[in-house]
Parts: sequence; C-alpha cells; structure tokens
Amino acid sequence: MAVAPWPAPHRFQRMNADHAPGQERSEVPQGLRHVDFSHGDVSAFPPPPEVVDAVTAALRDGGRYAYSPYRGHSFIRELVAQRLSTFTGAPIDPTSEVIVTPGTQGGLFLALSALVERGDKVAVVAPDYFANRKIVEYLEATPVPVELAYRTAEGEPARLDLDELRAAFAGGARLLVFSNPNNPTGAVYTSEDIEAIAALATEFDAFVIVDQLYSRQIFGEHPFTHLRAHARERCLTLIGPSKTESVSGCRVGVAIAPAAIIDRMEQLQGIVSLRAAGYMQAALEPWFAESEGWLDQRIADHARIRDDLHAVFSASGAVSTRLTEGGSYLFLDVPAAKGRIDEFVAKLRTEAAVTVTRGPEFGDFPESVRLNFSQDHQAAVDAARRIVQVAERL
Amino acid sequence: MAVAPWPAPHRFQRMNADHAPGQERSEVPQGLRHVDFSHGDVSAFPPPPEVVDAVTAALRDGGRYAYSPYRGHSFIRELVAQRLSTFTGAPIDPTSEVIVTPGTQGGLFLALSALVERGDKVAVVAPDYFANRKIVEYLEATPVPVELAYRTAEGEPARLDLDELRAAFAGGARLLVFSNPNNPTGAVYTSEDIEAIAALATEFDAFVIVDQLYSRQIFGEHPFTHLRAHARERCLTLIGPSKTESVSGCRVGVAIAPAAIIDRMEQLQGIVSLRAAGYMQAALEPWFAESEGWLDQRIADHARIRDDLHAVFSASGAVSTRLTEGGSYLFLDVPAAKGRIDEFVAKLRTEAAVTVTRGPEFGDFPESVRLNFSQDHQAAVDAARRIVQVAERL
Repeated sequence: MAVAPWPAPHRFQRMNADHAPGQERSEVPQGLRHVDFSHGDVSAFPPPPEVVDAVTAALRDGGRYAYSPYRGHSFIRELVAQRLSTFTGAPIDPTSEVIVTPGTQGGLFLALSALVERGDKVAVVAPDYFANRKIVEYLEATPVPVELAYRTAEGEPARLDLDELRAAFAGGARLLVFSNPNNPTGAVYTSEDIEAIAALATEFDAFVIVDQLYSRQIFGEHPFTHLRAHARERCLTLIGPSKTESVSGCRVGVAIAPAAIIDRMEQLQGIVSLRAAGYMQAALEPWFAESEGWLDQRIADHARIRDDLHAVFSASGAVSTRLTEGGSYLFLDVPAAKGRIDEFVAKLRTEAAVTVTRGPEFGDFPESVRLNFSQDHQAAVDAARRIVQVAERL
Repeated sequence: MAVAPWPAPHRFQRMNADHAPGQERSEVPQGLRHVDFSHGDVSAFPPPPEVVDAVTAALRDGGRYAYSPYRGHSFIRELVAQRLSTFTGAPIDPTSEVIVTPGTQGGLFLALSALVERGDKVAVVAPDYFANRKIVEYLEATPVPVELAYRTAEGEPARLDLDELRAAFAGGARLLVFSNPNNPTGAVYTSEDIEAIAALATEFDAFVIVDQLYSRQIFGEHPFTHLRAHARERCLTLIGPSKTESVSGCRVGVAIAPAAIIDRMEQLQGIVSLRAAGYMQAALEPWFAESEGWLDQRIADHARIRDDLHAVFSASGAVSTRLTEGGSYLFLDVPAAKGRIDEFVAKLRTEAAVTVTRGPEFGDFPESVRLNFSQDHQAAVDAARRIVQVAERL
C-alpha cells in the first residue's frame, strides 16, 4: 500500500536545498583522475598525526571522554579558550564563553537558531557560504544581501559595501553573518572593513556572527583582523580544525560568544545532538599546538597550489578569478556559463572528471563555480587545465 | 561596556530547558563513591572492543572515511540495512530508507523537524523521553499527552491508553512519538498495543516515530514487537549503539523511514551538522555482529543489577518501582517527594552521592526519579540503599 508523502513543513520549502554542495555524484570519464574540488582531499593533506593519536587514546580511555557536558569537556574548553584568546587578541572565559559543537556547521546552525526570530531580517554577505542563507530561510527569517566587491584589480583588497550594511541595519536587520576569509572567494577583509562592521554593530545595537574557519591559513604577509578584538560583546566567532587541519572527519568546531548566547546554544544542542562526539573532542587537544613548522609547511604547500592554479586560469581569456588571500577556496568566473551553469558543471564532471560547486549557491552568481584547492598538487593543476578547456569550448 | 543580552527567539522560551538531564553538577560528599544514574557508566560496561578497533582503523585510513554523503557512507548503510531488516522483520532499502545521524538524538531532532509543522498537535506518550516534548515545543507545535499506564501489578503489562490516542488523532494530531522499551520506566509495549498503534495510524492517516534505542536489551523471554513490521510506510524507527553497546561517545545513530522522509532529514542534516563524524560511522561496522555471546552476557549482567536494585527498592515502604522489562532505566516513585522533588534530588546528591534525573522531565510525574542502572553492580546496589535511606528520612 502506497502512502501519500507527508507534507514538508513550511520552513523546508524555504530552504531551497535541491542542490547539496559536497553531495554531487561522481560519474566521471574513464582514464582521467577525478578531482573533487567540492571539498579538500584529506589523503593529499592529512590531519596532523597528533590528532589521530589523541582521538585513538581517547577511545581507549572511554570513561573520561565518552560523556561531556553539552558544551564540551571542561578540560578541552580550558585549552581552547587559552589558545584562541591569544590567537584572536581578546580574552575568553572557558566556563561561560566557549562551546564545542559537531563541526563548525553545527556551531553555525546553533548560533543562528539562538539569535534569529521568525520574521527577522538578517544581513548576509554575497557571495558567502551557502548555509548562511539556507539556515536563515529555514528559521523563517529574511536574508538581506550585502555585497562584497571582490572582482578588483590585482593587489587591490575586496571591500564590503558598508552603505548597504548600514542600510540593512537601518532597515531593521539586527544581525550580520559572514565568513572571513570569505568563502567562496578567498578574500580577506581589510582592517578598515572589520572595524567599520564593529562600529556599525555598536551604532545600531546589532550582533555579528563571523565564521573564521580558514583564518589560520593566511598567505604571505597579508594582515588578518579578528572582529572579536573590536566587538567582543557583539560578536560570535566560529572556528575549528576542519579545513587547514583536515580534521573534518571528526566533526568538532568551536564557537566563542558572550555567555548568554553560549547558554542558549547549549540548550539547543541538548535537543539537536547532545554534544560533539565525546571521543572526537580530543581532536582539539593538539589544535594550535601542532609540531614546530607544521602550519607554516601546510600554508606554503597551499600557496604553491594557489599560484599554479592562478597561473593556469590567468592564461585563458575564457575564465577569471581573484588571487586567494586566505583559505583554500577560489571562485572562478566563466562568462560563457551564464544562463547554463548547471550544464557547465555537468560537462566538467563528464568531460573533465572534475567536481566543483555551482556559483548560485553563494548568491546571485550565475556564471561562477567554487573550487577547494586543498588537493594533490599535480592532480589539481591538471584538472585546472581541463576546466579551462571545457570553458573555452562553451 | 556591558551589552544587553539579545532576546531569545520565541521557540526557545517554549522549550523550558532550565533542567538539563545529564548535565547535573556533582557536588558529592567525601568518602562515598558517587554514582551518576543520569546515564550509563561506560567504564563499567565498555563498548565492544571491535568498535574501538574499527574507529581507530578508520582514523588511520582517513581518505575513505573522512567525508561521506550527508546520509552516511553507502558501505555503512548497506551493512546496517541488512542487519536491521533482519532484526525488525521488514525490508530496508539501503539507498533510500536509511540515514546515519549524530547519535539517536540527532535522528530524533531531524525526524520531528521533518514532520512537524508549526501549530501542529503531536501525540506524546507520558511518561516518555523528555526531548520528545522539548523538540515538539521548540518546533512551536503542541504536545498532546497519551498515558502509558505502567503502575501495574507485578507481571502485568503496561498498557497505552488507546482511547486517548484515538482522541488525539481524532482531535487533529497527525503524529505520535514514543519510545519502546519505554524511557523512563523500562516497560515493553505489548504486541496488542503496537498493532493497535499501527491500525490507528492507518485509520487516521497518521505517522509514528518510535525510538527503539534499547530494543536489543530485552530481559528474559519477554516478547518485543517492532512497529515497522506492522506499519512500514507509516513509521520511522530510531535506533543506535549508544546504550546497550555503550557507544554514546561516538555519536552515531540510525533512522529508518520511507524514502521521502529520509530525503528531508538529509536536507536538514546538511545545514544542522553535515553528517555524523565520518570516522565514527565505522563504529556501526561491528554493530549487530559482536562476538558470539557478547550481547547475551551484557543482557545477563544488566538483569542481575536490575534484580538486585528491585529487591532493595521493594523492601522499603518509602519507594516503589516497576520491574524493568527492557533497557537500563527504572522509574522510582517516592510519594514523600511530591511537591519537593528538587529538594529530594538535591539531597540524593549531597547526602547520598547519587545523581538521578527528576521525574517532571518525563511529564506530570512530581514524585518520581529515573535511574539508569548500567553501572558498576556493587556501586549501584550500595547507592540504591542510600537512596532508600534518604527517601525514608523525607
């Protein structure tokens, strides 16, 4: 007996989750090495060996690790608070201002859920991480786009449209959510823009969620400004070891925020997932304490891949991209793909054995695709050449 | 500068999450061995050794395990579908009818979120797992209590009030959520009640979520009836290795449901937490395939603890309880605690070095407390004697 499908709750329809980045099927041609640019390749860049050791030890010492308070083990929060206060340049109370979540994604969902009321307006940068918009929609609130101008001349910084942000706050938005370094472009915000965001939040009594997942991986001498050093009482910082450190398979992330917000996130975590896996919280023990030179080496390896891909893409008139300043993402503009981005993405898969994430996930970007270049170096360069070929044939 | 706390969204206020079971602080007297009955003790009952081996191997083979589709690794879903179809007595399509979630809690949140519209009525058994009610409230729906009569004569089955369930469906509820074995009483539903639930769901075109987290741990020859064998197209079954198998520290659970519901849960998982930790999904490989005799031994060990606690509690006129038929919970009635349950719970902690979960979490049970007796045997019996002493002094 077939039963009629139960109607989806209203909030599901708003999510528009038909495309699920990272979920693309891989139907790739024979003979080519498939490169999945939708996320990093942990075989090419494995986690620090200390992480595997720490989690393995935790598994064998289960009584200590299996259960934790919903906000995470106190001994883990102590470590994390100390290291992140040094990193971000502002103090953190380990008891009240930190929560360990199932990945940074888990933190983002809890943070937005803790702050967004149905019917609210929420300022969302465009382009930015697709889940920002989806979660806001799921919570039955309205995203108000604020443009990040990233298509600048070489060497010129990307700039947030501060007039648009002011207008969003003046129009009733009480919350801004954005990522720094920006996902998908790899742009790093200027200190002027970060300080202006802090000032506008204060002026309009607003709150800011900043996703700094890739903030340890900044290339060259590029300066990086931590929002919480300028707006500690008005911001929530998301960070974790899933990207640069390749620890995504452990699903641990960290949120830092004023105590009242952390309390609310913990209440919600109590019904959503209870806690980040008790054993996996041990993956945070070696975080920010990797062996001497480990992080520098990882950044240098990624800088070389970035430069080689940039050279391949810059040599073609069919595509263009901004040089990534932080993180492992690049956003590729393919003007010929406008109006047929899904066809282009499908061709990349079937003709070039390449998986990418479609630009429209990040806002109104109908001719762009995102690549995570944390991949085997040579395989990534070869795949970039194939991308150019497909783009030139369009 | 102190900033006014941001107002909590409306749905937070409905949750009433002031008490967080499993989160109780432990201020216990010197000299007594603290027994935390709020959850099982994984040092007393460790996970099967194959689980630790499987997760450790996955951590060292990261490329295969780190990332999975949001619904879980296909090779894990194949194994789980095969074993659970045998266990539950009805086929399962591994591609479309299974999702791996961050613990069974993660599955419960996704399941209710996938089915409950704001303003809905949802039939919720009383007593039952506290998160059922909290999640329904969080989703801005209304729980409609349906009584489970569990205070029966020794040997008599607990019975669901089927008239109340009919009235709830007739009054507009389209969903029932319950646990079997029942949390907190350890009662197992009769086959008559399970078949009646299936028939009522069909009659009223309703859907049922059944949490069978403890359904592998049934004592003696007590029969257990799987709802999905009678209502496969109208039910979602939650199960996982967190309880009997002591694998809670891995945060992996499984939901089985019609494909349309699993699709929706996966969409939501994509914004809530992405996936159960990729490495931890390996904990499901040895599940239902533990070494010969492992499960029988575990059940026998728990039956002995159950019997000894039952003897301690039955010998006192100050408390009473039902003999647990399945799982590791018992629900203790303490008539003198009525009207001052928080005082009683606090005295247990400060005078008897015992942590329990308060009855009001499970519905209108102002004189009861829940114990998880998956503990060191002797420590549990000693603690039970101390509980009786505190109850008698009330």
